[in-house]
Amino acid sequence: MSQQDNPTVSLDDFQQMIRRMYYEKDISRGVDGTFMWLMEEIGELAAALREGTHQEQMEEFADVLAWLTTIANVVDVDLSQAVAAKYGSGCPGCGAFVCTCPDEGKP
Amino acid sequence: MSQQDNPTVSLDDFQQMIRRMYYEKDISRGVDGTFMWLMEEIGELAAALREGTHQEQMEEFADVLAWLTTIANVVDVDLSQAVAAKYGSGCPGCGAFVCTCPDEGKP
Repeated sequence: MSQQDNPTVSLDDFQQMIRRMYYEKDISRGVDGTFMWLMEEIGELAAALREGTHQEQMEEFADVLAWLTTIANVVDVDLSQAVAAKYGSGCPGCGAFVCTCPDEGKP
Repeated sequence: MSQQDNPTVSLDDFQQMIRRMYYEKDISRGVDGTFMWLMEEIGELAAALREGTHQEQMEEFADVLAWLTTIANVVDVDLSQAVAAKYGSGCPGCGAFVCTCPDEGKP
């Protein structure tokens, strides 16, 4: 998954990489402490969306994704399985692959 | 990417699926409105982490990931490229594939 290779990353590979990289720290910090880091990254993403460059936005998206993945590791949620189950058969609201939920509805 | 198949999902495929499913709505809502939905999902994830079942936690992780992806689509950030660039060569802090940053440091 190096920068030089094709950048297509499997969600499962990414989750395993983050697990290998941070799991010891994540487990000792626990869900609450890890969630606080996620919130900090969410704030940085908001700032980058407001006034950051495209490069800064990319970095903040990567960080939010990494911290979200870290929490998934702590509670043993398989992200790949989670998104396949919820979105793999279409929009959870209307069931279509191009959402037809009413505009006032959630999606 | 159906529930029946191997649940290994590429981040790129997921982003494209979310784009196909929601892009029209996402673009007309814009970043600010979409970010609000992400925040609502973050709140639901926090609740599920606190007192939800494993199934509920899976669903909330999927939703947070979907809304994060939706915002990435609006600002044209490729998530797969973003994580490969930031984490593909090791921890952004120490450069190692098993993080050796000091515990008081960010990760």
